[in-house]
Amino acid sequence: MTLSAIKPGKIVTIGEILVDIMALERGRGFLEPLNLRGPFPGGAPAIFIAQAARLGHAAAIISCVGDDDFGWLNIERLKRGRVDVSAVRVHEDHVTASAFVRYREDGERDFLFNLKRSAAGQTEIDQPARALLAECAHFHIMGSSLFSFHLIDEVKKAIEIVKANGATVSFDPNIRKEMMDIAEMRAGLELMLQYCDIFLPSGPELVIPTEAKSEPAAIAELLELGVGCIVVKRAARGSSYYDRDRAIDCPGYKVVEADPTGAGDCFGATFVTCRRSGLPVEECLSLANAAGALAVSRQGGMEGISTLREMRALIANAS
Amino acid sequence: MTLSAIKPGKIVTIGEILVDIMALERGRGFLEPLNLRGPFPGGAPAIFIAQAARLGHAAAIISCVGDDDFGWLNIERLKRGRVDVSAVRVHEDHVTASAFVRYREDGERDFLFNLKRSAAGQTEIDQPARALLAECAHFHIMGSSLFSFHLIDEVKKAIEIVKANGATVSFDPNIRKEMMDIAEMRAGLELMLQYCDIFLPSGPELVIPTEAKSEPAAIAELLELGVGCIVVKRAARGSSYYDRDRAIDCPGYKVVEADPTGAGDCFGATFVTCRRSGLPVEECLSLANAAGALAVSRQGGMEGISTLREMRALIANAS
Repeated sequence: MTLSAIKPGKIVTIGEILVDIMALERGRGFLEPLNLRGPFPGGAPAIFIAQAARLGHAAAIISCVGDDDFGWLNIERLKRGRVDVSAVRVHEDHVTASAFVRYREDGERDFLFNLKRSAAGQTEIDQPARALLAECAHFHIMGSSLFSFHLIDEVKKAIEIVKANGATVSFDPNIRKEMMDIAEMRAGLELMLQYCDIFLPSGPELVIPTEAKSEPAAIAELLELGVGCIVVKRAARGSSYYDRDRAIDCPGYKVVEADPTGAGDCFGATFVTCRRSGLPVEECLSLANAAGALAVSRQGGMEGISTLREMRALIANAS
Repeated sequence: MTLSAIKPGKIVTIGEILVDIMALERGRGFLEPLNLRGPFPGGAPAIFIAQAARLGHAAAIISCVGDDDFGWLNIERLKRGRVDVSAVRVHEDHVTASAFVRYREDGERDFLFNLKRSAAGQTEIDQPARALLAECAHFHIMGSSLFSFHLIDEVKKAIEIVKANGATVSFDPNIRKEMMDIAEMRAGLELMLQYCDIFLPSGPELVIPTEAKSEPAAIAELLELGVGCIVVKRAARGSSYYDRDRAIDCPGYKVVEADPTGAGDCFGATFVTCRRSGLPVEECLSLANAAGALAVSRQGGMEGISTLREMRALIANAS
């Protein structure tokens, strides 16, 4: 079972490929020795693009990893998932990015990143990246990738290339509290909205880039700014779609939560990929909700991606 | 029980403070998810200086950590161990160094470091470091700290300051195969020998910086170069001391091996600290062997440091 009418051209993303190291015990932060498990392949853009490829779409990522086990683990995993890694540079002098993740008792997470000075921080629009962008029909950006002025500049370059070629652009702010300390990120967030055909915020991320105090006001402001459509992710409560003509809500699917890492990335990739294959908005929302629910039910970010068959089975069981 | 005649002045070292993340399963490298445990406070210079402080000597480290849990974990641990951390900078824009460690079936270890671009890579002889060096009576350098030209330059600055003040210098090459790829390290290794009063190689590290093909030839070459004395660490087989007049062997102590991380650092700190308190070479070797054996018997690098009482108890039990 694949999407029947995928359009030509590639879905391309840019940003961090990293390993996740997960604490097996709940609590606060990393101030004492803990039982951990890892490395798990990860990084929001990497999970996004693996999910798009899993749905059968031509998919590629522009990134940079170190010449170390953490880098090769990720490259091999993406290759096995049929993601084009021709624009993933293997850097000889920077190490692969990493994220230590620990759950708090209340379900919130603490992260400890090595990102800015890692290989991922060296991602750039080099010749292999330009070759990919020439084939790009849709370009996706994660807010988590805007962690330095260098990255924001490279993302901007990429957007200008693909926009000139008529590609569409989606943006998932994917804000983590540890990252909003980075002044660059706030500037980057605002910049991305100017180019955005599909905006994919999670709950409160909808209002953050606006002057608005309420959801409806934020939606109006964003559509006025030129954003094509807005898809609000509400985790277990499903999702909503807004454009100038329509407001559509779609309830979520119940699953036993194992690990929410990557759920939003799988949601976004499924919505974008299904829209590109011409499915109606309602069905795209439903499949994206199913993708998010399946991701939540599995341990590990990259482990959360699923097939169209699995998504349809979840939907069929729920109805 | 403390060393009876510790001389005034501080033992000071410089170099990486990091966290160790230990794989709990043996095998090769980090290409798949594993059970891990960490963060453990570590870094060869940090373990060395904690052992010197544990023996009652005034001890300080010049280093740099990130403003993150891994950094604070280390600072708190060093403070509790009475190490002077006045010259440990907390960097706002680089993360604390880390080392993933996995044992192979044959007992060898694979390391995956984040060092050069970490906060530890930003270590420098700033004002707090200069204030410390003014009080320095003995300065210790780990080869593992010479991982960039920047670090080599800073170490050189420090040595010149302390040598001008009449302090002695010890050097432990502490070479890891992953590090010899760094061209800077080989250059740094040769430079250090020129300043070295006490050279502390482990087995084969003795010949690496020389033209010699045998141990006796290497010893002759090093003494000729001006190295004051050479203490060769032979792990379970004990240690040997060489200067222009003497060659002294001291057998090791048998313990059940739990984790050799830090054993050489504890050995070196104990030898240096005991020599400074005026103990005869034979006793210094014996205590240093005991320190190394105790370190090997415990999991975790920093966990391996021990008191003089524990060392003397091990020696008494063995005789």
